[in-house]
Amino acid sequence: MKIAIDAMGGDHAPKEIVLGAMDAVSQIENLTINLIGDEKKINEYLTNSKNINVIHTDEVITAADEPVRAVRRKKNSSLVLMGKEVKEHRADACISAGNTGALMSAGLFVVGRISGIDRPALSPTLPTIDGKGFLLLDVGANVDAKAHHLVQYAIMGSIYTEKVRAITNPTVGLLNVGTEDGKGNELTKKAFSQLKKAPINFIGNVEARDILSGTADVVVTDGFSGNIALKTIEGTAMTMFSMLKETFMSSVKTKIAAGMVKSDLKGLQGKLDYSEYGGAGLFGLSAPVIKAHGSSNRRAVYNAIKQAAHMVEFNVTNTIETTMESIDLEEGESE
Amino acid sequence: MKIAIDAMGGDHAPKEIVLGAMDAVSQIENLTINLIGDEKKINEYLTNSKNINVIHTDEVITAADEPVRAVRRKKNSSLVLMGKEVKEHRADACISAGNTGALMSAGLFVVGRISGIDRPALSPTLPTIDGKGFLLLDVGANVDAKAHHLVQYAIMGSIYTEKVRAITNPTVGLLNVGTEDGKGNELTKKAFSQLKKAPINFIGNVEARDILSGTADVVVTDGFSGNIALKTIEGTAMTMFSMLKETFMSSVKTKIAAGMVKSDLKGLQGKLDYSEYGGAGLFGLSAPVIKAHGSSNRRAVYNAIKQAAHMVEFNVTNTIETTMESIDLEEGESE
Repeated sequence: MKIAIDAMGGDHAPKEIVLGAMDAVSQIENLTINLIGDEKKINEYLTNSKNINVIHTDEVITAADEPVRAVRRKKNSSLVLMGKEVKEHRADACISAGNTGALMSAGLFVVGRISGIDRPALSPTLPTIDGKGFLLLDVGANVDAKAHHLVQYAIMGSIYTEKVRAITNPTVGLLNVGTEDGKGNELTKKAFSQLKKAPINFIGNVEARDILSGTADVVVTDGFSGNIALKTIEGTAMTMFSMLKETFMSSVKTKIAAGMVKSDLKGLQGKLDYSEYGGAGLFGLSAPVIKAHGSSNRRAVYNAIKQAAHMVEFNVTNTIETTMESIDLEEGESE
Repeated sequence: MKIAIDAMGGDHAPKEIVLGAMDAVSQIENLTINLIGDEKKINEYLTNSKNINVIHTDEVITAADEPVRAVRRKKNSSLVLMGKEVKEHRADACISAGNTGALMSAGLFVVGRISGIDRPALSPTLPTIDGKGFLLLDVGANVDAKAHHLVQYAIMGSIYTEKVRAITNPTVGLLNVGTEDGKGNELTKKAFSQLKKAPINFIGNVEARDILSGTADVVVTDGFSGNIALKTIEGTAMTMFSMLKETFMSSVKTKIAAGMVKSDLKGLQGKLDYSEYGGAGLFGLSAPVIKAHGSSNRRAVYNAIKQAAHMVEFNVTNTIETTMESIDLEEGESE
């Protein structure tokens, strides 16, 4: 199996990308990695190049670049070349920790969609209290979603969760303003009735209040609301940690207490660190494309590679494609 | 000034409602309160009825009732009678901690809208790190909002924030998936250009990640996304407190540390307790209508009463009405 990685994307590139790649080839069998980026900078950290190829390029898409334009114009950027590796079948999957919008554009325009999926979905796995985690999609690939897009998300999310996360018959919830049937806006009301007929384990509406308690294994929503939910979780957690830190630094007594629970609190922060579950999959493309978090360290990069490898190994893309084909047939028959 | 209160709404009604009302009349000058509900139950707690009138009714709208139907059929419920007190000018404002949907229906059908406002907005004030707080609207009164509704929210929110929260020239942000101009879905793109022309201090798009840091004094969004944001904040905070509790209970050492910081952590929880800012205003109605949190205790009820009293005192409703009238004129002229 071969995975292409944008070595220049992310806050700690190329160092942490290279370190994570070396960890992955040493721990995952039959894995070869193509690192795309500045050869000189990559080689500073590449202490062992066994099963790692470097594809050199000077051009880089930065966080400040306008995504669609950057993908069109910077044809030799590490991100675009990474997509080409997949498109031209030199790699089975690809990963970038760089510009999210540019990765979505490269996914759509370079890697290409699966037939049967209208819009790809950006799909991170987020932590839950019990440590099991849940898949949230879409968090921003498609901010003006239609009801049938949400059904496609539900099917893709179920397949991923069953195959890669090994959860049998995963539950699917529709993010909504209340749990009762009939709640919601025009979009969720329409999606609700379509999800009921879809070949998934649909459990109905779920509220944002309950998703971190693990109320569903897969939570589907439009990209706008999903983005708001994801960033609200991040913002609230960040705010609470900063308030907690302030509380612990407020007096001699609290500072002593802080020293006593320091490692335990680190553990708590670890529980909330969703890079443990890998990156966010961009589902619906003709090969696994993973967006690793911008702040990815070595371990997060390793987890994203493991995730991509699992997606390839368990045939997630093909399964989505054949499932969509069988549903299209059924819909055609019933019409 | 007279305020009507649904004495039977909320998890701790009528006890905490009655206690909060007694606190309010003793601390706020020229205030009379009409408590509507079961006289016998109310009188159990009403140890001092100075400036408090009790209006008896047996009928109650519960949390399980379907809102619109309940308001139409339960004409003698404490919630509907409370709305009538305002409509028939026997009260200047009203408060309920009961069924949110029913309060919104009663607001719309019994109290009535201000001319110039198409849809009322449910508007809680949420905590920020610096303790200043921000107003989020709408959090669910109108789940299929149009761009011009968001402009109306922005104007109402600015007036409330300036008058009641005493923040001069409050900043208004549009909740969006990115901070750059041009970001967003169809709704936010359209709203953005309309907000730029509105008579408010519009600072552009804000991200959910930053709202608890106080990035804007007023954050406007459609009721669906606002509801998701609000409940995600609640769910994330709840999850973190429960993880924190678990962490502190995990060993003898952490238990000792917990004992040392107990009161400080209570303070942290207090910082995040948004009932300190009063209830959620239902803005756009012809009188102040406040939704107190369902779990309101005596202090939360008192804060909601103080908030309603300020809204009456500072003429929030009239200011909104005259502002909307002047804008309608301008728009008419420019067309």
